Amino acid sequence: MSDSPQPDPFPPWRNRLHEVIFEADDPAGRRFDIALIIAILASVLVVVLDSVEAMRVSYHGLFIGLEWFFTILFTAEYVLRIIAVRKPRRYIFSFYGIVDLLSILPTYIGLFVPNAQELMVIRLLRLLRIFRIFKLVRFLGEADALRHAFIASRHKIAVFLTAVLIIVTIMAAAMHVVESNAGNPDFSSLPQSIYWAVVTMTTVGYGDVTPSTPLGKFLSAMMMLIGYSMIIVPAGILSAELAAEATKHAKRATTQFCPSCSRDGHEFDAVYCKFCGDELNPQDHHDDAEGST
Amino acid sequence: MSDSPQPDPFPPWRNRLHEVIFEADDPAGRRFDIALIIAILASVLVVVLDSVEAMRVSYHGLFIGLEWFFTILFTAEYVLRIIAVRKPRRYIFSFYGIVDLLSILPTYIGLFVPNAQELMVIRLLRLLRIFRIFKLVRFLGEADALRHAFIASRHKIAVFLTAVLIIVTIMAAAMHVVESNAGNPDFSSLPQSIYWAVVTMTTVGYGDVTPSTPLGKFLSAMMMLIGYSMIIVPAGILSAELAAEATKHAKRATTQFCPSCSRDGHEFDAVYCKFCGDELNPQDHHDDAEGST
Amino acid sequence: MSDSPQPDPFPPWRNRLHEVIFEADDPAGRRFDIALIIAILASVLVVVLDSVEAMRVSYHGLFIGLEWFFTILFTAEYVLRIIAVRKPRRYIFSFYGIVDLLSILPTYIGLFVPNAQELMVIRLLRLLRIFRIFKLVRFLGEADALRHAFIASRHKIAVFLTAVLIIVTIMAAAMHVVESNAGNPDFSSLPQSIYWAVVTMTTVGYGDVTPSTPLGKFLSAMMMLIGYSMIIVPAGILSAELAAEATKHAKRATTQFCPSCSRDGHEFDAVYCKFCGDELNPQDHHDDAEGST
Amino acid sequence: MSDSPQPDPFPPWRNRLHEVIFEADDPAGRRFDIALIIAILASVLVVVLDSVEAMRVSYHGLFIGLEWFFTILFTAEYVLRIIAVRKPRRYIFSFYGIVDLLSILPTYIGLFVPNAQELMVIRLLRLLRIFRIFKLVRFLGEADALRHAFIASRHKIAVFLTAVLIIVTIMAAAMHVVESNAGNPDFSSLPQSIYWAVVTMTTVGYGDVTPSTPLGKFLSAMMMLIGYSMIIVPAGILSAELAAEATKHAKRATTQFCPSCSRDGHEFDAVYCKFCGDELNPQDHHDDAEGST
Repeated sequence: MSDSPQPDPFPPWRNRLHEVIFEADDPAGRRFDIALIIAILASVLVVVLDSVEAMRVSYHGLFIGLEWFFTILFTAEYVLRIIAVRKPRRYIFSFYGIVDLLSILPTYIGLFVPNAQELMVIRLLRLLRIFRIFKLVRFLGEADALRHAFIASRHKIAVFLTAVLIIVTIMAAAMHVVESNAGNPDFSSLPQSIYWAVVTMTTVGYGDVTPSTPLGKFLSAMMMLIGYSMIIVPAGILSAELAAEATKHAKRATTQFCPSCSRDGHEFDAVYCKFCGDELNPQDHHDDAEGST
Repeated sequence: MSDSPQPDPFPPWRNRLHEVIFEADDPAGRRFDIALIIAILASVLVVVLDSVEAMRVSYHGLFIGLEWFFTILFTAEYVLRIIAVRKPRRYIFSFYGIVDLLSILPTYIGLFVPNAQELMVIRLLRLLRIFRIFKLVRFLGEADALRHAFIASRHKIAVFLTAVLIIVTIMAAAMHVVESNAGNPDFSSLPQSIYWAVVTMTTVGYGDVTPSTPLGKFLSAMMMLIGYSMIIVPAGILSAELAAEATKHAKRATTQFCPSCSRDGHEFDAVYCKFCGDELNPQDHHDDAEGST
Repeated sequence: MSDSPQPDPFPPWRNRLHEVIFEADDPAGRRFDIALIIAILASVLVVVLDSVEAMRVSYHGLFIGLEWFFTILFTAEYVLRIIAVRKPRRYIFSFYGIVDLLSILPTYIGLFVPNAQELMVIRLLRLLRIFRIFKLVRFLGEADALRHAFIASRHKIAVFLTAVLIIVTIMAAAMHVVESNAGNPDFSSLPQSIYWAVVTMTTVGYGDVTPSTPLGKFLSAMMMLIGYSMIIVPAGILSAELAAEATKHAKRATTQFCPSCSRDGHEFDAVYCKFCGDELNPQDHHDDAEGST
Repeated sequence: MSDSPQPDPFPPWRNRLHEVIFEADDPAGRRFDIALIIAILASVLVVVLDSVEAMRVSYHGLFIGLEWFFTILFTAEYVLRIIAVRKPRRYIFSFYGIVDLLSILPTYIGLFVPNAQELMVIRLLRLLRIFRIFKLVRFLGEADALRHAFIASRHKIAVFLTAVLIIVTIMAAAMHVVESNAGNPDFSSLPQSIYWAVVTMTTVGYGDVTPSTPLGKFLSAMMMLIGYSMIIVPAGILSAELAAEATKHAKRATTQFCPSCSRDGHEFDAVYCKFCGDELNPQDHHDDAEGST
């Protein structure tokens, strides 16, 4: 609201750089983001293809060249990002700062530690950078809606998973007793039985661990039906929420009683009693504030 | 609301014990709950690892020691719980009282009945105690929302499962006739066919029982499509509920017309017209009763 | 609404019989329904157990006796139902009338046509009779909510299935070309490929038909992702419905324009313009009727 | 609204043809659509049956005859469609125009290029034409609701799939390192591991690629649980949307207080207080713009 501009020691070209690299409000920023997505996907494709034996034999030289090309590109981008921000330290130790670093480090480390296959996994973490661009690019604003949906359900998913895991463990123990007594080696240990229980309850059903006894098959069928019934859960969650909402609204309507006829159920903004026509008490403003929380 | 305190024969230290053990409102209670969750999970981990052959050979002594440590811990907790409550008998025969007992008994029984593998399953029931803590710990209040969702949909899930089981049985019988006539041993009996039908309709699909005839494959595909279409059911449930709600509201609002200005849209309990202030006709009470059914 | 009773040629004991057998409003009717559910489930259990080789060898005599016991019981019930209704012909040719007949006929036919395994399937149709009881028994009123949900979504499921089948057929054709050219016998014909496509898209995944070529695996992964994304569809259906509802409401608010300041957006029951304070035109009642359609 | 008719060079019989072929408002148009659906399904059935070895040997002549019959029928329909529209070029290069052409071309090309199995796939694209009829036929109006639902969720599905694919790739890389180090040939390359990850996360679970190491099985179970938890996402999406809606409404209503009676709850566009009739403060337009973002 203040009109007096503050002197800014930050040079304008770094501001401009920040706009292009970190934002997507103008054409230059948007073009940068699209180029970055293409570069990330292309570099991931190189890593994926390089892991195929037949491909590596024929094109390993090309793949190494491309990997170095993308690494140098992402290194330049990393340096520019550090230059563009006012507080480089905060960026470097932020989640995306670390992801940016992890997507270039493995190639450099590979110079000294050859054949370190584990480094490849770290290189693929650069895929996470696509999420940052999603956050920026305006025309993919739907990502926000889905992110909010995930945040809105993250506690529910956590509690849901805990309940699922408790059912899974107890059923796994029962199956372990039933099946390993019948000599089925698939259920020889509890961890193996828990693996089976997760495969079954989530309706994945590889079929690498299957029950062999009638009782085991009966328990399995029980478990599948439990897992399958969960498709009704989303409707249950929403119904419960809508019901809670409705109750809350209903309560809001019942906070007032008519001073002359003592009937309640007046709407929130009513001034006169709808039953006897007498004037209602002016609403207590403290009450209001609480009601709107 | 009464200010006069009643003499309480229950000593305050037992009240305090009750607060710490059964509630989670103060830091001590919360710390107790977190310690209990860690102890439960650790003791379950010991049971799980002990079931792995390779682990048992190397660390069986350690596992037995830990199991006794946790058993004595939970026994102490069980005794404290009995002391803390005013009516011990009610606690002992409650659901969680029995779960608490069942999570310590097997180790003691194991002294007299060695190698009783079935006792292990009972020991894992202590996982159920996590639900009680969920109910208490304030910061996991989401558990409540999900519990309400389960309660809200428990009748629907029961009816849904009955319908699913009827489809499953009839399809299983059809497949039994089709496939066992073609000599497929996987469908040799009805229970085996029902097992296949559950595996298929819940989209688990182990693949240990599969159709071999063209007609069998066609029936299987039918069944999968039935099972798969169920993902639309949650939306259907909510739509039907919202529509029912809307109809109820519409009915409430449209049954009355003002005798002087002939306008409708009055609420169910309105006595005076909200447009011209004239008195509305007294509602037919017989109509009321029908409307609220 | 007419108070004058009509002379009824139907004897009261048949009315009473109708109440007990077809309704569930009084204790007798409810006890009859519960007994019927138990009899149906028991008779189905007999059929299921009789199909197991080991069981049939030991208890075949017992199973035959029980089957005849239930058949005579259901025959008596069938006759009583015909006596209890006013228009027996309408009952006999109704859906449940035919199901009632089909659940007793096979045992009688079995006297003349021995070893007719196909008759067993027909006998299991008596499970469908549980639906009728569901419709009656008041305390299972949830069945109604779910039935409405099914009815509300039956058109959507039909269209959804058509779309799924079109995708399934086109993908199956593509896989047939790709995989059978590579010599994979699993995809040798289009029906077999369609079977695979249904197994895959519904996320059942038996694993009895699997792709062997890289391109085939890529197409399969595409298909799984299409099938899996469908879990978002219920939310989409409801969002679209809620949006349509909101638009309809918004339209209701915009049908009026203030005669003096020509602004729209007035609420449905407003009498004075909220922008200039002038009186609004009394609402056109024809318009109302259209708006409420 | 203009009553003066414009001279139309388009002959009425072509208008009538357009009504019958492209629309479904009158009985003739509806009968045409139903006949077309039957013809499409029958021609697809011929293609499907012809792909079965045993069928082709016995009835290949019949199938070729039927295929030519349907091709000539659809060719006639294609020509009539071109005649019926005012701008043939726009129709020919529209999506459905190309689908119409592609459903007749392969049979003609098959005259010159025998045994071109790939042409069969293209022929099955004629199934897509059913969607056009769905769009027309009034009594299947539910297709519209589902189409809107798909359109409403298409961005969400796109973002959802991107997130799924990123998780899938990173998990696949981890499994590739874990399992191929343990000598499991199923995870020998990254594309193969990605195929496994998609099969697992979508809960398809063929079982043709399965983990063999304990750590691999643990990661798989993690992944299944991630995939399975997604059934809560639809509820999350709707909750988030409803909450956003509620917040928007709340904001619209609570930003203004009446300067004379200090009551809030005014609508966004109100000029006069609805409780005391005094004029409200003119809204800050800068605020407006921000609020509507």
